[in-house]
Amino acid sequence: MNKPEDIKTKRDVVDHLLSHRSRHPVRENVNASAPANIALCKYWGKRNTELNLPVTDSLSLALGHLGSNISLSMGHKNDSVVLNDRELKPTDPFRVRTLDFLNLFRENQDEFHVVAQNTIPTAAGFASSASGFAALVFALDQLYQWDLDQRSLSILARLGSGSACRSVFEGLVIWHAGTSDDGMDSYAEPLGQQWPELRIGLIILSEEQKYIGSRAAMLRTVETSPLYQAWPDTVERDINEIQDAIADTNFSKVGRIAERNALTMHATMMASDPPIMYWLPDSLRTIKRVWNARDEGLDVFFTMDAGPNVKLLYEAHEQKHVLEYFPELVTTDG
Amino acid sequence: MNKPEDIKTKRDVVDHLLSHRSRHPVRENVNASAPANIALCKYWGKRNTELNLPVTDSLSLALGHLGSNISLSMGHKNDSVVLNDRELKPTDPFRVRTLDFLNLFRENQDEFHVVAQNTIPTAAGFASSASGFAALVFALDQLYQWDLDQRSLSILARLGSGSACRSVFEGLVIWHAGTSDDGMDSYAEPLGQQWPELRIGLIILSEEQKYIGSRAAMLRTVETSPLYQAWPDTVERDINEIQDAIADTNFSKVGRIAERNALTMHATMMASDPPIMYWLPDSLRTIKRVWNARDEGLDVFFTMDAGPNVKLLYEAHEQKHVLEYFPELVTTDG
Repeated sequence: MNKPEDIKTKRDVVDHLLSHRSRHPVRENVNASAPANIALCKYWGKRNTELNLPVTDSLSLALGHLGSNISLSMGHKNDSVVLNDRELKPTDPFRVRTLDFLNLFRENQDEFHVVAQNTIPTAAGFASSASGFAALVFALDQLYQWDLDQRSLSILARLGSGSACRSVFEGLVIWHAGTSDDGMDSYAEPLGQQWPELRIGLIILSEEQKYIGSRAAMLRTVETSPLYQAWPDTVERDINEIQDAIADTNFSKVGRIAERNALTMHATMMASDPPIMYWLPDSLRTIKRVWNARDEGLDVFFTMDAGPNVKLLYEAHEQKHVLEYFPELVTTDG
Repeated sequence: MNKPEDIKTKRDVVDHLLSHRSRHPVRENVNASAPANIALCKYWGKRNTELNLPVTDSLSLALGHLGSNISLSMGHKNDSVVLNDRELKPTDPFRVRTLDFLNLFRENQDEFHVVAQNTIPTAAGFASSASGFAALVFALDQLYQWDLDQRSLSILARLGSGSACRSVFEGLVIWHAGTSDDGMDSYAEPLGQQWPELRIGLIILSEEQKYIGSRAAMLRTVETSPLYQAWPDTVERDINEIQDAIADTNFSKVGRIAERNALTMHATMMASDPPIMYWLPDSLRTIKRVWNARDEGLDVFFTMDAGPNVKLLYEAHEQKHVLEYFPELVTTDG
């Protein structure tokens, strides 16, 4: 087992976590799935880009049946990645990222065949990479029969995509930023509180690829936005307050904190140089519709990620009314 | 003359500046005018709300013939304020503010009759209060024949509305935040550099009153936005860089700094609690049109104040092309 100070690369993390585990696939074909997740307190900015270690904690809600299903098998002649029924070209960024990740685990000449099906629009700010890498880690765990604990699975998923460490769990999840350089204290875990009434619905305004990926956008924000210096304290405040609000099942307070956290994240991006503006005019129109609905007494809030789409936060018993105001809402209750 | 430590209210400032001046009107009727101004580095947040002392310096461009014309006369039976040909009711906020300001100067039973004509839309983020109070101070200076120096006129205008201290001058103007409690070092002055090619045009998206006035919006930002802590350093950086860019008549650099400064100001507002969102969907659409025009080679930038409207920054020789992209542009060249 590596000493902590020797763990500097993704490969080091994998070697450390799998030091007593088989590196030879036991099964030939496995299936796994994981939910997408939407952060109520956002992850924005890394303290370590190699290991996807975040500057702050974050807190999310899983999206139930919306996420990724992965079929992983070995022994083909060549690596292949199929996404949503389409075989990806060798240069496709999703294929490159997927195989880069799988290369961390492969120690022989076997080839990987990945068939991924997203039940959520890919790369339009709907966290499909989170569910994808979490499902991939579940699949690897089965393929090699490692039987890893959940913390290790969360850390491995983080190596694929930061927020994937949260998609290892259902429900309300907190990702601890951690402080150690090797990231062994940077993993997600369930809050331990059930809140089945809590719902997220999607307002899909665009399914186009983002104009700038979140990795690049985070980096530019951290490096150029003068407002980013205030982000860590903001998240700390919001994470503390939202956990209290969750403990009290105080929905309005949860919604208010989630909304201001999302607006503040987008605000830090807009102040980047050049500015990062994920919003479309329709995003702003949707935000104002949410505020109008709330003025009329409907308990609905929004959050937004690195993309133009808007997610609505509400309680299950209000879903009928939310659908009256937002007939285009894609609900996510399983 | 008051000692600095005795100057705490607007009235104290007036008594200090007018200590050797007549408090009795010499003329019966005077006319004065002042230009509106648009900040390229914004004024957002006060260190003293009574005296309108700002947290940071700001830098603006005057709007030439767009501004306020004031006719001020004495001796009527009752105070009256006419704005754009309409006599204002006693409860009208503009009338109340105007008379509150004039009360700082009146020492006898004479009544004021104010006829104000704005050549720029009132209270939709077009700085009509800046030109209005600057013109009013010019008018008072004539009415009482004080013959005050420009610095004193700027300080008096500041008591009416912070940014009015910049409307005392034409062209490029800097407002020094100052550090003293009495605000005697918080005044505007011309940058001293002529740049007649520099132009601001207006894209008027709404002439409605703002949904929250800038005084209240500033206060809420300072008190509740976690991002505001980063604003003073941001402005200091921008003010320094834009002055260098102006000295070099480097238009693209001036535009880039002005644009990021405006976006950063709006970003600090959006992170307030409750959020302050002056943008309409059309504001965002206009921002993106500016970015598209720039991608196509047109040297045009935007700035925005506390309202939904957008101001375009360009050089005079490009005006024809800017009008092709933005036929609705209201030009401001005198």
